[in-house]
Amino acid sequence: MSYDPHNTAVIELGASKHARLRPAPLARVDINDGFWLPWMQRNREKTLPDQYRSLVETGRLDNLRFAATGEGRFKGIYFNDSDVFKWLEGACWSLISQRDTSLECLVAEAADVIEAAQQPDGYLNSYYSGEKAGERFTNLRDMHEIYCAGHLFQAAVAHHRATGEPSLLNVARRYADLLDREFGPNGRVGACGHPEAEMALVELARETGETRYLALAERFIEARGAEPRVFDNRSYLQDHVRFAEAQDVAGHAVRQLYLCSGGADVALENGREEYRAALERLWQNFTERRMYITGGAGARYEGEAFGADWELPNDRAYAETCAAIASVQWNFRMLHLTGESRFADLMEETLFNAVLPGISLTGDTYFYENPLSDRGAHRRQPWFDCACCPPNVARMIASLPGYVASTEAAAGAAPCVQINLYTNCDIRVELADVGEVHLRIETQWPWEGAVTATVIRCPEDARFGITLRVPQWADGATISGAAGEQEVTAGTFVRTVHAWSAGDRLELQVPFRPVRVRSHPFVLSNHGRTAVICGPLIYCAEQVDLPDQDVWDVAIPADAPLYRQGFSGLPGQANAVHTEGVKLTHGPSLYAMRPPAPGHERFPLTLVPYFMWANRAAGPMQVWLPET
Amino acid sequence: MSYDPHNTAVIELGASKHARLRPAPLARVDINDGFWLPWMQRNREKTLPDQYRSLVETGRLDNLRFAATGEGRFKGIYFNDSDVFKWLEGACWSLISQRDTSLECLVAEAADVIEAAQQPDGYLNSYYSGEKAGERFTNLRDMHEIYCAGHLFQAAVAHHRATGEPSLLNVARRYADLLDREFGPNGRVGACGHPEAEMALVELARETGETRYLALAERFIEARGAEPRVFDNRSYLQDHVRFAEAQDVAGHAVRQLYLCSGGADVALENGREEYRAALERLWQNFTERRMYITGGAGARYEGEAFGADWELPNDRAYAETCAAIASVQWNFRMLHLTGESRFADLMEETLFNAVLPGISLTGDTYFYENPLSDRGAHRRQPWFDCACCPPNVARMIASLPGYVASTEAAAGAAPCVQINLYTNCDIRVELADVGEVHLRIETQWPWEGAVTATVIRCPEDARFGITLRVPQWADGATISGAAGEQEVTAGTFVRTVHAWSAGDRLELQVPFRPVRVRSHPFVLSNHGRTAVICGPLIYCAEQVDLPDQDVWDVAIPADAPLYRQGFSGLPGQANAVHTEGVKLTHGPSLYAMRPPAPGHERFPLTLVPYFMWANRAAGPMQVWLPET
Repeated sequence: MSYDPHNTAVIELGASKHARLRPAPLARVDINDGFWLPWMQRNREKTLPDQYRSLVETGRLDNLRFAATGEGRFKGIYFNDSDVFKWLEGACWSLISQRDTSLECLVAEAADVIEAAQQPDGYLNSYYSGEKAGERFTNLRDMHEIYCAGHLFQAAVAHHRATGEPSLLNVARRYADLLDREFGPNGRVGACGHPEAEMALVELARETGETRYLALAERFIEARGAEPRVFDNRSYLQDHVRFAEAQDVAGHAVRQLYLCSGGADVALENGREEYRAALERLWQNFTERRMYITGGAGARYEGEAFGADWELPNDRAYAETCAAIASVQWNFRMLHLTGESRFADLMEETLFNAVLPGISLTGDTYFYENPLSDRGAHRRQPWFDCACCPPNVARMIASLPGYVASTEAAAGAAPCVQINLYTNCDIRVELADVGEVHLRIETQWPWEGAVTATVIRCPEDARFGITLRVPQWADGATISGAAGEQEVTAGTFVRTVHAWSAGDRLELQVPFRPVRVRSHPFVLSNHGRTAVICGPLIYCAEQVDLPDQDVWDVAIPADAPLYRQGFSGLPGQANAVHTEGVKLTHGPSLYAMRPPAPGHERFPLTLVPYFMWANRAAGPMQVWLPET
Repeated sequence: MSYDPHNTAVIELGASKHARLRPAPLARVDINDGFWLPWMQRNREKTLPDQYRSLVETGRLDNLRFAATGEGRFKGIYFNDSDVFKWLEGACWSLISQRDTSLECLVAEAADVIEAAQQPDGYLNSYYSGEKAGERFTNLRDMHEIYCAGHLFQAAVAHHRATGEPSLLNVARRYADLLDREFGPNGRVGACGHPEAEMALVELARETGETRYLALAERFIEARGAEPRVFDNRSYLQDHVRFAEAQDVAGHAVRQLYLCSGGADVALENGREEYRAALERLWQNFTERRMYITGGAGARYEGEAFGADWELPNDRAYAETCAAIASVQWNFRMLHLTGESRFADLMEETLFNAVLPGISLTGDTYFYENPLSDRGAHRRQPWFDCACCPPNVARMIASLPGYVASTEAAAGAAPCVQINLYTNCDIRVELADVGEVHLRIETQWPWEGAVTATVIRCPEDARFGITLRVPQWADGATISGAAGEQEVTAGTFVRTVHAWSAGDRLELQVPFRPVRVRSHPFVLSNHGRTAVICGPLIYCAEQVDLPDQDVWDVAIPADAPLYRQGFSGLPGQANAVHTEGVKLTHGPSLYAMRPPAPGHERFPLTLVPYFMWANRAAGPMQVWLPET
């Protein structure tokens, strides 16, 4: 078949029977000037080349070379191959959006090195080469072997979609065939201690048409939590319960959320009802009991794990950057499985407030954990020994255009183009029975709540829908344009079906006002505290903006006004929220029978977007501020 | 020399040059009816026999038998010997207070088994016997070898003090001599990953007069945090800083506090000034920034560690029972080093609110971690694989009489008998230049704040002091009696020097009123919350007393009265604090922009002593309640 890389999506649901939506191809969404373009440019020009250097310097590419030649010695952690794969995936997504010769060279080099490292029988893992070659698949629980394979498959799919070249995809097929021989219907029951390969295998099935890979993904999911246990019943390994029977998000947060993504991918293909029900239960538990307001996941350092219901400490939040990315992936799949806007809302919330904080505004340092309060010691690092997060952020940002828009074709209804994320962009999609539609989105989102969709070109007399997301936090949003003006309901997708002509416009107006949010009282960490949001962004108080007080020593009076304003203290177009603070006076005692009352004198208090924190001078920070 | 077991203390400071106080011998403090007697009786009749059964059933005694015979196989965790030693120490302290033939038999059996397990060169550790015998002292970091030796030494000292028999003490000497050959001035530099042996060696030095053991304790302390590092600079191993230079309590809480105890013991002997200064700094940091209101230590599950300053989560408090015991031991040593009442105050606070919660009111189940908030799942267990806490609680309760009183003889001043902990008891102590003084203490402490000290017998015309502790939380306390009435200052020892005669009385009146305590605002977990204390006890709300609300869903209005009353819902003489609550209404959302206001309707709210929690029906509990 002829393969058009310009027509492929991040997850390719063109043939997925149970998808309500199809993501628009990455290459069909051109991000223009605005919020995301600088992020993507920096990712391509700084982050990805920088990370490649780290892959080289830390021996990660050499490991794969050694695996090819049999000479040398593996260096680093046993799952280090996955960083190469994740980087390659990100670089490939980036190439779809923007050609870059020097990045193409790095991609070609990495792909060659990986290809050469494949063993004759399809196996590919540099840790299990040389003297360890005989130990492959002997410790599925701890050694991340199938996890690494999953990242290889995702890289191979992205590589194929970016370049159209079959080489790396064939590497993936050979390895997936080996996995199928080992763990498929004629093999043994097994799974990886770290889920990841499930969604990768489904995508590989979508890319190759090979349904055995889909079946293998389902087998891997079904092996967990079933008798006899593949591991030891631990939630850390996602072996505490059958996925289909899970009641709450538990254990290692990244593993749980990758597993949810894989489960959703399987459901997108086969519609399995008990998976859909489990996914809904898990999502409810996550969002109603175990999620930070940022969208961050994982309350505990021990086991990098979800805590109990409502256990959401701010200073010791784990909220691993990778877990946020996993949540975006899961929610993107849920969006396409159900068509419901809450998943797109959470995807957006998480991108802005839990993924982006993971990388500096200069694109070269990273957070692994993302606390919501800090005394100033937590600073981004250029790399980690366990370097899962940096390349994960890079691939997330690189693939961003793939998350922006989807198309919908409900039986009997007019086809629609749907905007999931608002950003300046040109969208050119093919709508069934309509033809190519070119929409231009103009907005200053997330700084302003006006979004204009202009039809640049469409077939004459085309009747189709333009679907806009009205976030659940939107208060008094309106949509106006060619089809009249209407007040719209928060937390919905609003579909405007019309006989559009070039030049027609549709305008969404979401009033962006800073508002206070409070927590359920069972969130012990947040009692008597308020967080401030404005539009999709969470704000925080950062020490650098508060010269005379300690940020941990400040409360917001309940009646203090909140207003937002452009802010020159941070790069780009940042807004800040301005309000008033009072000082919480106290002595040195940890506990006091007669503590002093808070001060009465009010002083200006500036709140900045949380994703921008720790980019200026180090110092205390708080998202949840005491309210007096 | 003739040895009088009836004249020995928990720590024997009779010859310690830098001690400001000497603990009264255990046998000279007869605990009578009142708060502690039932605890001690239950400890002797239930806890210690029960635990001995667990030692037998889990193979801990067999391990030692195998070490003696060379036949069999070590079972369990490599530090399991220490549980036998700790149990034996506790049983010996118990025998000093109260004869008990069946316990004597168990003590004799355990001592025989231990003695037989000693190798010809003095070595004694059942894990390193049989095929592992060649590996001794090869992994000091992880294998708790010297830690186990320390517990053996403490058991041996207690055994000698209880029985007067030299057998086990000689076992300890032989092993300590071996350690001195290995790690003393003619050996290599080393230390155990888990401090403990330091205080044990000092006590062994006190018991035997062998100053090499004191020097070895100091060498072990000095090996840590020095170049070249004995370990890897980790606070978990107390290798992050020289003890003398430490600025804050850090790393594994039990290790840190055992090390502090050892450092204080060394300072008691040699007065080393930099140790005294370090101990003071560590104590300030602990009590002003890293201690739960219960006295509990250790905020983090990961590494069983102290958190950062003010990091004190309630639901995920670690607050290991062993760490509380270590803190009591440290504070007892600080009290005798300085003579300052704040250490006795904290010892008391910790005993009631951080040690006692570690054991059930039936004396047969235990907490390892002691959260200050819980949803109801945290319940005491009969034993643990890592069983450090149960025998530690048993030895703490068994040695309690040794903590009650001290004597003081400042140069040129009248000698004093000092009461550190208030409990019904008869104290018979020998005061220098005075002779034997017999005091009777009568009190219903911790339920009532009246304490009467009656001179039952003393030499005629004896002029001596009776020193009473006025806790730092006491408001409006008075002391009256033979020497008149005076209002006294909270947070002091008040010394009443007088020519006492039999029948003279001294009365301390501390008004026990329930009061609200609030935290420093940097304790993020406690903002807007109040804890209620009454006397030395911390109270909590327990679900079983609140039929119609969830305990996590209740606030105390700022103006709600607090009154205390006897409470039949719990055994013994328990008081409860009665107040009013309001309901914190809310929807299911984790975060809400317009949360409902708290309810106005007030309902009765009962608070019970925290140490008694989880002894009735399981359910939510909170120490820090929201205040509206």
